Amino acid sequence: MSTSVSNPATSGVQTDWQGWYAARRSRVDQAISEHLSAEKGRLASHSRLPEAVQYSLGKGGKRLRPVLILECCHVCGGSDEAALPAAIAMECVHTFSLIHDDLPAMDDDDLRRGQATNHKVFGEALAILAGDWLMTDAFVVLSSDKIRAELSTKLVSALSQGTLGMIAGQAADVEGESLPGSPELVEYIHAHKTTRLLETCCQMGALCANADEQQVAALRRFGQHLGLAFQISDDLLDYGGSTAALGKRVRKDAEASKQTFPSVFGIEQSRVRARQETEAAVAALGPFGERADRLRGLAQYVITRDR
Amino acid sequence: MSTSVSNPATSGVQTDWQGWYAARRSRVDQAISEHLSAEKGRLASHSRLPEAVQYSLGKGGKRLRPVLILECCHVCGGSDEAALPAAIAMECVHTFSLIHDDLPAMDDDDLRRGQATNHKVFGEALAILAGDWLMTDAFVVLSSDKIRAELSTKLVSALSQGTLGMIAGQAADVEGESLPGSPELVEYIHAHKTTRLLETCCQMGALCANADEQQVAALRRFGQHLGLAFQISDDLLDYGGSTAALGKRVRKDAEASKQTFPSVFGIEQSRVRARQETEAAVAALGPFGERADRLRGLAQYVITRDR
Repeated sequence: MSTSVSNPATSGVQTDWQGWYAARRSRVDQAISEHLSAEKGRLASHSRLPEAVQYSLGKGGKRLRPVLILECCHVCGGSDEAALPAAIAMECVHTFSLIHDDLPAMDDDDLRRGQATNHKVFGEALAILAGDWLMTDAFVVLSSDKIRAELSTKLVSALSQGTLGMIAGQAADVEGESLPGSPELVEYIHAHKTTRLLETCCQMGALCANADEQQVAALRRFGQHLGLAFQISDDLLDYGGSTAALGKRVRKDAEASKQTFPSVFGIEQSRVRARQETEAAVAALGPFGERADRLRGLAQYVITRDR
Repeated sequence: MSTSVSNPATSGVQTDWQGWYAARRSRVDQAISEHLSAEKGRLASHSRLPEAVQYSLGKGGKRLRPVLILECCHVCGGSDEAALPAAIAMECVHTFSLIHDDLPAMDDDDLRRGQATNHKVFGEALAILAGDWLMTDAFVVLSSDKIRAELSTKLVSALSQGTLGMIAGQAADVEGESLPGSPELVEYIHAHKTTRLLETCCQMGALCANADEQQVAALRRFGQHLGLAFQISDDLLDYGGSTAALGKRVRKDAEASKQTFPSVFGIEQSRVRARQETEAAVAALGPFGERADRLRGLAQYVITRDR
């Protein structure tokens, strides 16, 4: 492992980084809460749709994607204010993907973030619609006239293309369940299902700061490697984690014969690959020097987390 | 009925108008087919997602919404080329809404446009994802760098807000099934479920032509009344139409205890209201003079159609 990788789990910066992350997460929670309040008027809908949306978007989660957007914006010299609409839009898309993935026809999960999944509480029809609503709302947020048109269009393009990639990955994941384990297929699924949106976070954060093309490209590379490290570590957590810590069912991928890194490459090789991807992610941050230390910490967090 | 309304079903313009509509529909079919070909690369996805998307977007339907966009653009002096991206994006959103509405958890329909519904052919998981994909693709289309940024942002804003309205209407529709018939609720559902997107078509068509605010407002009013007339006539067709003509199951709304105009206001009053809304739609076209004759024909078609 490269010596340039400082591991927040073992180094002296751990407490600092954790405190920083908690503060960032709470900034995101606050912005999402304000967004939901502002949306209440729009949501007046003669149905429980507002509750279903609030239930999944309002509550917890790691807020990894919005935090990543804010920090990539900072690294390129931008402010929280410049990046918050993109951060909210991204969390809307992420939440939509979780609600739809949890549906009985997809992964059929009863538990998410330690609470009952959306369709268990509101029924399948409303869960489908809450997902659709969140996905659409992301584009309402990005097309606000508070964002200048050139930036708005770039953000819409980045988010919509990233989301298409995620959906294509999800489709391959669902259909891969009936296929024998395949290195090519699992690489495709992992490069899309999780990675495309994490790459998009980095891209959007940089765009919000008016970063130059080299900076955008460097942060996208960071996001690609980070995304792969994240998904492989997710696979490993599903193998070895606990439902109590994760707030979702474990070993469900193996039960569903999912195409995962451990099932195709073995646990040890998956650990090595996750570490390699983390190093590659950190390497991509070279041009940003010390300014990117929080992102380096985030890359370490992704593979050392227990949930 | 106002004498300013010329009915293509009874007047000499009928054949002309039908020929015009068929040609417009075929222009839209061609554009969608080109779009699907161009998307094939993006859709290379290790799954049947491309087939599922092609199956529902590629085939038929009336293409009413795209034709409406093209014509509203023309009426304001714009070209087909200026309006086609908006027309394609709108048909993507409309198709997404049909695929999700047909799901077992929603309206549970086996037949759409005379063929098996998406989930009957590809399964529920892929149908959910094909809907998600189409919805997202609409925003990829609208954020293309071929559209100038100011227009792109306005179109994204219009389409995303219209779609939120449609989803809110659909949620009220689904939840209304367990409630007693209510004039207030059925008005809300009809003003949102179908009407919001038809209003959005008119708005987007006008925006593509750089129309002034008065023109946009007049066409939106046209779309609102047209949408209501369309939905009421849809309710009436469900009561009195045939599965063979409609290409979808009939009398399903009554079976599902849906909140419909005929069930709440009676058939006769619903017919009167559909006619009134058509007249109001036509009245909104006043400022455009003869240029809007095709739109007048379209308003008549909406309430005289048998499918």
